[in-house]
Amino acid sequence: MMKVSNLVTKRFKETPADCQIASQALMVRGGYIKNVGNGIYTLSPITKRITKKVEAIMREEMDAIDGQEVLFPVTMPATLWEESGRYTSIGSEMLRFTDRSGAKMCLGMTHEEAAVQYARGIADSYNQYPFMIYQIQTKFRDEPRCRGGLIRVREFTMKDAYSFHTSQADLEAYYQRCYDAYHRIFARCGVPEVVAVCSDSGMMGGKISHEYMLLTDIGEDSIVLCNECDYRANMEAAPSLIENEAGEMEALRKVDTPAEKTIEDLCDFLHIRKEQTCKAVIYQRNEDDSYVLVFIRGDLEVNETKLRNYLKAEIHPALVTEESGITPGFVGPIEHKGRFTIVFDRSLKGIASLATGANEVDKHYVGFNIERDFGAVEYVDVAKAVTGGICPVCGKKALRISRGIEVGNIFQLGDKYTKSMGMTYVDADGALKTPIMGCYGIGVGRLVASVCEVRHDDYGPIWPISIAPWHVQICSLRADNEEVAAESKKLAETLEARGIEVIWDDRPVSAGFMFSDADLFGVPVRVVVSPKGLKNGTIEVSARDKSMQEKIPVAEAADFVEKYVKDQLAALGCPMK
Amino acid sequence: MMKVSNLVTKRFKETPADCQIASQALMVRGGYIKNVGNGIYTLSPITKRITKKVEAIMREEMDAIDGQEVLFPVTMPATLWEESGRYTSIGSEMLRFTDRSGAKMCLGMTHEEAAVQYARGIADSYNQYPFMIYQIQTKFRDEPRCRGGLIRVREFTMKDAYSFHTSQADLEAYYQRCYDAYHRIFARCGVPEVVAVCSDSGMMGGKISHEYMLLTDIGEDSIVLCNECDYRANMEAAPSLIENEAGEMEALRKVDTPAEKTIEDLCDFLHIRKEQTCKAVIYQRNEDDSYVLVFIRGDLEVNETKLRNYLKAEIHPALVTEESGITPGFVGPIEHKGRFTIVFDRSLKGIASLATGANEVDKHYVGFNIERDFGAVEYVDVAKAVTGGICPVCGKKALRISRGIEVGNIFQLGDKYTKSMGMTYVDADGALKTPIMGCYGIGVGRLVASVCEVRHDDYGPIWPISIAPWHVQICSLRADNEEVAAESKKLAETLEARGIEVIWDDRPVSAGFMFSDADLFGVPVRVVVSPKGLKNGTIEVSARDKSMQEKIPVAEAADFVEKYVKDQLAALGCPMK
Repeated sequence: MMKVSNLVTKRFKETPADCQIASQALMVRGGYIKNVGNGIYTLSPITKRITKKVEAIMREEMDAIDGQEVLFPVTMPATLWEESGRYTSIGSEMLRFTDRSGAKMCLGMTHEEAAVQYARGIADSYNQYPFMIYQIQTKFRDEPRCRGGLIRVREFTMKDAYSFHTSQADLEAYYQRCYDAYHRIFARCGVPEVVAVCSDSGMMGGKISHEYMLLTDIGEDSIVLCNECDYRANMEAAPSLIENEAGEMEALRKVDTPAEKTIEDLCDFLHIRKEQTCKAVIYQRNEDDSYVLVFIRGDLEVNETKLRNYLKAEIHPALVTEESGITPGFVGPIEHKGRFTIVFDRSLKGIASLATGANEVDKHYVGFNIERDFGAVEYVDVAKAVTGGICPVCGKKALRISRGIEVGNIFQLGDKYTKSMGMTYVDADGALKTPIMGCYGIGVGRLVASVCEVRHDDYGPIWPISIAPWHVQICSLRADNEEVAAESKKLAETLEARGIEVIWDDRPVSAGFMFSDADLFGVPVRVVVSPKGLKNGTIEVSARDKSMQEKIPVAEAADFVEKYVKDQLAALGCPMK
Repeated sequence: MMKVSNLVTKRFKETPADCQIASQALMVRGGYIKNVGNGIYTLSPITKRITKKVEAIMREEMDAIDGQEVLFPVTMPATLWEESGRYTSIGSEMLRFTDRSGAKMCLGMTHEEAAVQYARGIADSYNQYPFMIYQIQTKFRDEPRCRGGLIRVREFTMKDAYSFHTSQADLEAYYQRCYDAYHRIFARCGVPEVVAVCSDSGMMGGKISHEYMLLTDIGEDSIVLCNECDYRANMEAAPSLIENEAGEMEALRKVDTPAEKTIEDLCDFLHIRKEQTCKAVIYQRNEDDSYVLVFIRGDLEVNETKLRNYLKAEIHPALVTEESGITPGFVGPIEHKGRFTIVFDRSLKGIASLATGANEVDKHYVGFNIERDFGAVEYVDVAKAVTGGICPVCGKKALRISRGIEVGNIFQLGDKYTKSMGMTYVDADGALKTPIMGCYGIGVGRLVASVCEVRHDDYGPIWPISIAPWHVQICSLRADNEEVAAESKKLAETLEARGIEVIWDDRPVSAGFMFSDADLFGVPVRVVVSPKGLKNGTIEVSARDKSMQEKIPVAEAADFVEKYVKDQLAALGCPMK
């Protein structure tokens, strides 16, 4: 059995200066992770015990939906990624290198290409479908902004799964099985509150995808939820539905707006509401730096993912040059017609009279009517959804915005990879067809850190018992007392013989010091053996989450703890075997 | 339970053209591995089942010697390897790259630096020693010559362990525990014949090291073994002990030896034995291409590792230029004295009269006496040991040379890494000291391929039951026969309920086809359910290694198979839990 004194980790009293979030601070202070380089960590023996349990749960759930575990390589030849086109389409987050022979290679950040390369030539008849292969393997993404300990790193362990199908109906049926399996994984890892939200498919391709979100204020993603129905989507994928007041049509007039730099100032000056303004947001295409002028109702923000998808191009906020002829702060559509790509958000549709820039310093138009003064335009949805906005499912004005950490994602990929990589099978009718795919991923380390983020107090993590490094921590107060040492050892050995995982603290340290360390270990059940307790014939048993604290007669302690641990494990869907 | 028809692998009848060894051919034909790039493979679901069992055995044995599992990163900053000096001392087998920020990084090929970086600052007091941390993780070595499937690859999974100690005695005691644990790992994986041999420490540093060798003709290493005692060493580390006949002293004479290019020709021409010749072997130092002339008894070969260690420099066989003044085929020591580094192997010591080159075309000396004609020299052991040579332990002329695959290695590293990387601890007396280390490695994939190499027949692998992908394969001959299907299913379900792992072949294929596939799966126990057998009330049970074949009454089949599997597992030290 593990003793605290033998464990190769160290705990720290102070929060390191560079920690951004609570879980990171606690995992550094508790000796869970050690930074090796930018976004690269060594996992300590405590964390490895946790990740092994998380991985075991993942394996059970993937096997339960007929997954077959494989191992794809971390390093791959560039030629494999050139087949799908992603060797060039993915940016600098893919780590590229050349080997000793000068061959171009890369580090796997996802394994669609490897999965197709493996299955291609194996699954060549329709009757071998559907099937799913998965792995738990190291991945590397050259993240520009690592953050929050294991929340956002460059090297990480991921469970990634790939399913292959002969029809969209079959893919959808399997997608639903995996959707459910993912909910079971998160619930068994102790975070049943994880929600699935509709998401944008990004670089993965395909149309339908979901992200699994653990809602927390420190999350990097914005989630749109409906208070009235089940609607949930990532901000990137949430449509923005707008009801506009048409207002009165007015004549177009150019007015002096000296020194009115912000929308607020302008509205004050003109005595109008933000909803009556046509705001410009300027981007450039990455490929050629050409400008894209987006016009949107003044109270709304541009959702860059939706804009990117509409333009089918990568973009960045513009750096406006003098030669461009653009007058920042006073940009309007009229004078730029035909000069740049101009996008009108659908929030502007139907407003009779708007204020907008006149493309001259200190000048704006009022009474701007898009159809009359600019011409017929296509209105596009590129706005961010807002709190109080209209739900696209139930139609009520009941949206709210929360923040969340993405702890998993699933995609219906269609034939993006199988088609480009030439994977085919012979169908029942003898025809050569292209299978379609789904893919399904969960990052192990991020999940562990996310659980810590939502299951901790000021003193340390409160690990769900299904993934806790140990089930029970025995704290021997005054381990130099012979009776304390003997009872502690006996209890530890009895529990271990019954399959309960015990860490024993028998160090000659103060109770305060020992309990602080125990808080950082976050072991769900704490047993305190003390001279005072033994004098009264009892051992104290408590839960790390403070839901239970009992003084148990010494002779009954092992049975009590065993039953408590087994009940808790079973309640999380991880009964002891 | 897994059905052959659902398994995402494919089997091939023909041996692929590029397979060098039997295990590689069988593992490709059986669908165990799929090549992704040079020395890079995907492991199929069958192989992943095998490696998981091998890894579980490794974990049990490492935990049993108080190891604590961690996870070091695959990618590491160059600065970490610069601390130990290995960023420059290791050649192009280390994969180096730069990340998006231009920082130099590398892929881990071993993790001494990472282990010290982790433990440094944690183990700062003598009472925290000894301890051992280990991981099972992906590694990458940019091998110039990949070979034999998983035998020699570039990307591989390795179990690597690092122990830390405060004294040489403590290191040696732990080294012995690990030495024994390694023997248990190999025995439990079904290859108890693996032998530990003394080895050269190479780039790892340190003095004492052992390699674990599986003796087989296809092995890349030469092993020196004694027929009379327990002595075993890698050729690279084996001393060469020589008894010479002194012979008669003669006068030094230059003789014409026209067109005598080989040692054999020269000996025929001069009517002498090879043992009376002083042969030249010419090398160059890698650093400056300076020449090194090695002289050795004509019947022996140079052991380049021993030469390298003596010179403390990397060397390569010489490319002799005209300007060098070296006359290939006629090189002798006399005229080159003082011009080049000259090394005399100790095989030449005490021979009164030798033939050697005269450094002129078609000229040799006879009657060459080293001390008289060249001067006092240091004799160095740089010769390869030979069959029939003298054992350095028992002194008998009983050496033999075998070939082997290195399946593991262990090293006493001393303070090479801890000192260079500034790891210290406070000793009991308050003094600041540097700990010493041992390291211990086994490649998972190579071990699996090696087991296949020594446990196969012409038709497929014969997996030891402890690491076999399944315990039992049920072959249903005529699965379209209702009774066959029903009995097969019942037996499979009964066995699985008892913890026996079953793969079931219920495909409508011929017996010959089914058995060929079963041979390639190499599952240790085969159960054949056939209409004919059932008519007689029996099911046929046989062992893949042909050690058992029985017709068992249907009602007793499950019990028989269960007992057989459990007995076999227990015999390999892997009792079913």
